[in-house]
Amino acid sequence: MNVKKIPDIIIGRLPVYLRALQRMADNGAKTTSSQELGEHVGISAAQIRKDISQFGEFGKQGTGYSIQFLIDKLREILKVDRVWDVVLIGAGDLGHALANYNGFQNRGFRVVAIFDNDKNKVGQKIGEFTVEDTDTMLERIKSMGVKIAMTTVPASAAQEVADKLVQAGVRAILNYAPVSLNVPENVKVQYTDPSTNLQRMTYYL
Amino acid sequence: MNVKKIPDIIIGRLPVYLRALQRMADNGAKTTSSQELGEHVGISAAQIRKDISQFGEFGKQGTGYSIQFLIDKLREILKVDRVWDVVLIGAGDLGHALANYNGFQNRGFRVVAIFDNDKNKVGQKIGEFTVEDTDTMLERIKSMGVKIAMTTVPASAAQEVADKLVQAGVRAILNYAPVSLNVPENVKVQYTDPSTNLQRMTYYL
Repeated sequence: MNVKKIPDIIIGRLPVYLRALQRMADNGAKTTSSQELGEHVGISAAQIRKDISQFGEFGKQGTGYSIQFLIDKLREILKVDRVWDVVLIGAGDLGHALANYNGFQNRGFRVVAIFDNDKNKVGQKIGEFTVEDTDTMLERIKSMGVKIAMTTVPASAAQEVADKLVQAGVRAILNYAPVSLNVPENVKVQYTDPSTNLQRMTYYL
Repeated sequence: MNVKKIPDIIIGRLPVYLRALQRMADNGAKTTSSQELGEHVGISAAQIRKDISQFGEFGKQGTGYSIQFLIDKLREILKVDRVWDVVLIGAGDLGHALANYNGFQNRGFRVVAIFDNDKNKVGQKIGEFTVEDTDTMLERIKSMGVKIAMTTVPASAAQEVADKLVQAGVRAILNYAPVSLNVPENVKVQYTDPSTNLQRMTYYL
């Protein structure tokens, strides 16, 4: 595999390809084409071929891609051919939903701890987890060596939580709060919110 | 504005630009450059200029973009310069989180009704909403003329719910269930799940 710098915009599309390929595999398909994959994800076949070719020759002219081979390669590239521990901060409705979410399995992640600053929530059971106090978060995350966090705290608390996470060694934050986070350059943040997803469709209505 | 066909991949980036611009505006900024915007969203300045130029000349060489002007233009292009009614199917943890989410405000959306097929949940209050029976969903959505839905139902129920939504006239579905939906060509589906967001960051770890 090339070690040249791959543009972030291409890296961002790989998980989308991976999700579509995993669905195809779940439905029993064995091979696919950039054309077919493109229809699933709304990206042109040419763009998909270009993106994938950044990492090597994974398809054959005329016969297309072996779905399982491409899944394995993408998992390797994205480093989800292993299981990453993830901490969850915020035990509200969304925190509950994420704690109980069964879609982390086989995708490279598992939640290992949940924290909240609300003393009424600390000690509460959510599925197999017991909500822990954010006061203990820094030491706990450090000692577990966790690098990934999901934050579902209110907007007003998001930056303070992010600062603590960075201090604890977290290098990737999936932020559900509708605010920008200031983090050092070596820390990645992804934002997710339903409005942005919905706005992607209204253009067509 | 041009009426030429804009690639879907470009449309998909506009809500991300809009979110970043709205954050800049919230922080008091008045103007920005494709360079600065690019740093916020992880997309190259050249790509941003190219994307935005599809719709007209919105920036000035040397002085950059007026943030508010660009926000207004993007809202107009994405048709979120109005407020869309949205129905929510599934009153579980994630449904509660979405019903109580305050990030729809000023982004072009408002939830108008929540449905669930669990008779224990029907009649329950969630904030200002009363959970309605999915048995009445088809007629209710039709009579309200709602075109957008968010589904947080279990994977096993997602296709059946989608079929009903399409029948009721819904043309855009934000699907939180980890399954592909089969819908007619004139219906848009967006998928969102935390694993895909997390996978976008592990590459860098």
